[in-house]
Amino acid sequence: MPRILRVAAAQMGPNQRADSREAILARMIALLDQAADQGAQLVVFPELAFTTFFPRWLLTPAELEAYFEPAMPNPMVSALFDRARERKIGFYVGYAEKTADGHHFNSSITVGPDGELLGKYRKVHLPGSVEPRIGDKFQQLEKRYFEYGDLGFSAFYGPDAWGSPVTGMLVCNDRRWPEAWRCYGLQSVELMLIGYNSAAYDPNGGKTENEELRTFHSTLAVQANAYMNATWAVSVAKAGNEDGSGLIGGSLIVDPNGVIVAQAQSLGDEVLVADIDLDACRQGKEKMFNFAAHRRPAQYSRIVDQVGAEPPPVGTPLKVAGGQGR
Amino acid sequence: MPRILRVAAAQMGPNQRADSREAILARMIALLDQAADQGAQLVVFPELAFTTFFPRWLLTPAELEAYFEPAMPNPMVSALFDRARERKIGFYVGYAEKTADGHHFNSSITVGPDGELLGKYRKVHLPGSVEPRIGDKFQQLEKRYFEYGDLGFSAFYGPDAWGSPVTGMLVCNDRRWPEAWRCYGLQSVELMLIGYNSAAYDPNGGKTENEELRTFHSTLAVQANAYMNATWAVSVAKAGNEDGSGLIGGSLIVDPNGVIVAQAQSLGDEVLVADIDLDACRQGKEKMFNFAAHRRPAQYSRIVDQVGAEPPPVGTPLKVAGGQGR
Repeated sequence: MPRILRVAAAQMGPNQRADSREAILARMIALLDQAADQGAQLVVFPELAFTTFFPRWLLTPAELEAYFEPAMPNPMVSALFDRARERKIGFYVGYAEKTADGHHFNSSITVGPDGELLGKYRKVHLPGSVEPRIGDKFQQLEKRYFEYGDLGFSAFYGPDAWGSPVTGMLVCNDRRWPEAWRCYGLQSVELMLIGYNSAAYDPNGGKTENEELRTFHSTLAVQANAYMNATWAVSVAKAGNEDGSGLIGGSLIVDPNGVIVAQAQSLGDEVLVADIDLDACRQGKEKMFNFAAHRRPAQYSRIVDQVGAEPPPVGTPLKVAGGQGR
Repeated sequence: MPRILRVAAAQMGPNQRADSREAILARMIALLDQAADQGAQLVVFPELAFTTFFPRWLLTPAELEAYFEPAMPNPMVSALFDRARERKIGFYVGYAEKTADGHHFNSSITVGPDGELLGKYRKVHLPGSVEPRIGDKFQQLEKRYFEYGDLGFSAFYGPDAWGSPVTGMLVCNDRRWPEAWRCYGLQSVELMLIGYNSAAYDPNGGKTENEELRTFHSTLAVQANAYMNATWAVSVAKAGNEDGSGLIGGSLIVDPNGVIVAQAQSLGDEVLVADIDLDACRQGKEKMFNFAAHRRPAQYSRIVDQVGAEPPPVGTPLKVAGGQGR
């Protein structure tokens, strides 16, 4: 029996700092309704979907805490959860998580069509810096405001009604790190869900990247990592001019060949829908990327033994002695 | 001082089984001369450049041994080495290596402008199978004819005259494996050299891949891995109808943003030339892909602890207990 799942990407336009939670939630519910009206069984929202991208500012502790969710769901977001359950549609959503014992993470959850929590993820690859850059109008302070994710890359099964896809989650910058995708690939992932907020300029202060190039990077990373892990991917932006700082769009749905099947054309609220055949992952998983047949982990030790780059020593003798003869 | 290196990709059309070594070598020398005439300092030839792609057939031992080089250089290839030294141009070339003690590898070398051996590589990711598929006209028997590469992924410095680029080599299928690229990225690679012979259909017997899709895959993998490791890449095909079996073209030169700066238009002998600014790698290495700042190897253990894919157990409880609170 073919396993066809109808998925939606709910790209969001900007959430201004002055926008009320009610106004943002109303937009998200409208997007969810659009997806459900088109028969989607799962809709993917962006990273930090309920708020502005607050790591762009150096905030007071009180300002900062107001952006975090003390639980999920909670009264500030429950209208979205209620509507989703009513429409029998699942969703992925990114949010700022504060745990009961006071830890802070940049997290995402996937919720099933009956409101059940299917999976939870905490962002591993936090970009930016702990200290603000003096004199810059916009910062990237994720390393200041969040702890590194401590749940690993744990795939889970979607419900039977979706064809039980092996599902993985990433948040934003994680999508540029092939290690993250491979950890899911090694769990036979069939569906990757990703939300992002990516600046339309280099938020780390570089001068060589513009909006077009950064959108290209975002698209390229998802296409290639989907291909190299033979998985579907839904990658969804919060986009547009948010409090004076530009965010790229380019939300997209990519097939296991790395081919784009749908891509957002705007920088605003926009829903993409596609029917995805989960069994289209099989060709890649059984042939080119049959990991059991073709991977050579004995050669990969640098990936875990080393954090930063280490150039070869100058004057390194040619390494052939370790091998068989010349 | 800017470090600008003029590189060339020497895509080759097919080498038919009936072609003499002299005829193939004459074509390679003509390509090398075209590159040198345009001022290139380094020219990249394909995988198994001196012969047809012989792993497509089940061969007798005597037939097989005739495709292997007993040393490099040797009298069958020395005309190429001599011309390169004369023209003061370096080169990468792929060849079938037989060691003095009888081991077989799918290898490549990089030779400097004075004829010195700069680096040697033996293909790690051998595709295909040990046993032939019954009834198929063309096979992919690399796992039968070669041993897995035993030299790891060892970067080396190009000569001062090239700006001393940290250089890495891969062969064909390796380019689809992000682990291989990352092992070089972790050595600060600035220039990746790759030769390939990739069938225009699925050589593993799948039915869903055509020439256009396979060329897209080849291009996508190089673009994204160059971007994610902030390196230049030169990836070069042997292309066209070789002994009745199609090979894709699509040779290309890619910048550290993953942007294509030159790509072959034909399936025949064709030279691409580009001036590459090695310092263009710095933005990526210092910002987005500052590995020391952003990688999280403690989360990557699956990559080395596991070979094949292992789906999550059915009924896996939601993993939040390992983390901090709910």
